Amino acid sequence: MAIDITPAVIPHLCVDDAAAAIDFYVKAFGATELGRVPQADGRLIHAAVQINGSTIMLNDDFPEFDNGKSQTPKAFGGTPVTIHLTVTDVDAKFAQAVAAGAEVVMPLDDQFWGDRYGMVRDPFGHQWSLGQPVREVSMEEIATAMQNQG
Amino acid sequence: MAIDITPAVIPHLCVDDAAAAIDFYVKAFGATELGRVPQADGRLIHAAVQINGSTIMLNDDFPEFDNGKSQTPKAFGGTPVTIHLTVTDVDAKFAQAVAAGAEVVMPLDDQFWGDRYGMVRDPFGHQWSLGQPVREVSMEEIATAMQNQG
Repeated sequence: MAIDITPAVIPHLCVDDAAAAIDFYVKAFGATELGRVPQADGRLIHAAVQINGSTIMLNDDFPEFDNGKSQTPKAFGGTPVTIHLTVTDVDAKFAQAVAAGAEVVMPLDDQFWGDRYGMVRDPFGHQWSLGQPVREVSMEEIATAMQNQG
Repeated sequence: MAIDITPAVIPHLCVDDAAAAIDFYVKAFGATELGRVPQADGRLIHAAVQINGSTIMLNDDFPEFDNGKSQTPKAFGGTPVTIHLTVTDVDAKFAQAVAAGAEVVMPLDDQFWGDRYGMVRDPFGHQWSLGQPVREVSMEEIATAMQNQG
């Protein structure tokens, strides 16, 4: 029987304690756990949660599979990817993430591009932005604003 | 008028040449450009593309907004996030990405968890996995397999 495939884009996060990260994402973002695959040593080689209606995958760090190099945000000293959540109730969701222990990187505020938007860093070093469109602003208007500022 | 909001999870990538990255993603992943917002100096403070049916945002590096610290995968020496694409024709899509200049990190192969799956690194240092479910395998079966291996 053919397998039904829904095309998707899924962020896959490496963290230094995947079980703790799942617990955190449940508290901070209302995540639902979809499953976890532990190795004998307890580290999760794979796990998946649903956040804001979409799947996010995560796994523990396995430096032994990467020439001894850790692949966590802490090991890299940051991350070049921010996971953005488009939400309908950004004030409540941002407050929930911060109450759960997320660190504020950019305070929640009404931004010039029309979103009420803020950014946090989770205890594992991953960055998340939460945004709610509150005002219709076209890309052209934003570009004009930037050109005038620049 | 209320703004219609569809909850979404959107990876937001920092790259060292966002305009070139858009061109690359068009060639490698069949991306469609949704828009770009240049500063006066040409750097893109914001851009969005659609890949595999979902939005991905990107922007140029602005170390002056981050205490002088670059936020690119090259600056960090890697990335703790892999952007996974669930696709229906993984052999063709993987070959297209490699032909466009993506570097193979994990060759495409049938994996024990039921996906035909491989991983590449793009010229900007971001990591992408492409996977097509080809065999039904439950999380429990995978967990059992891992416990026996571990």
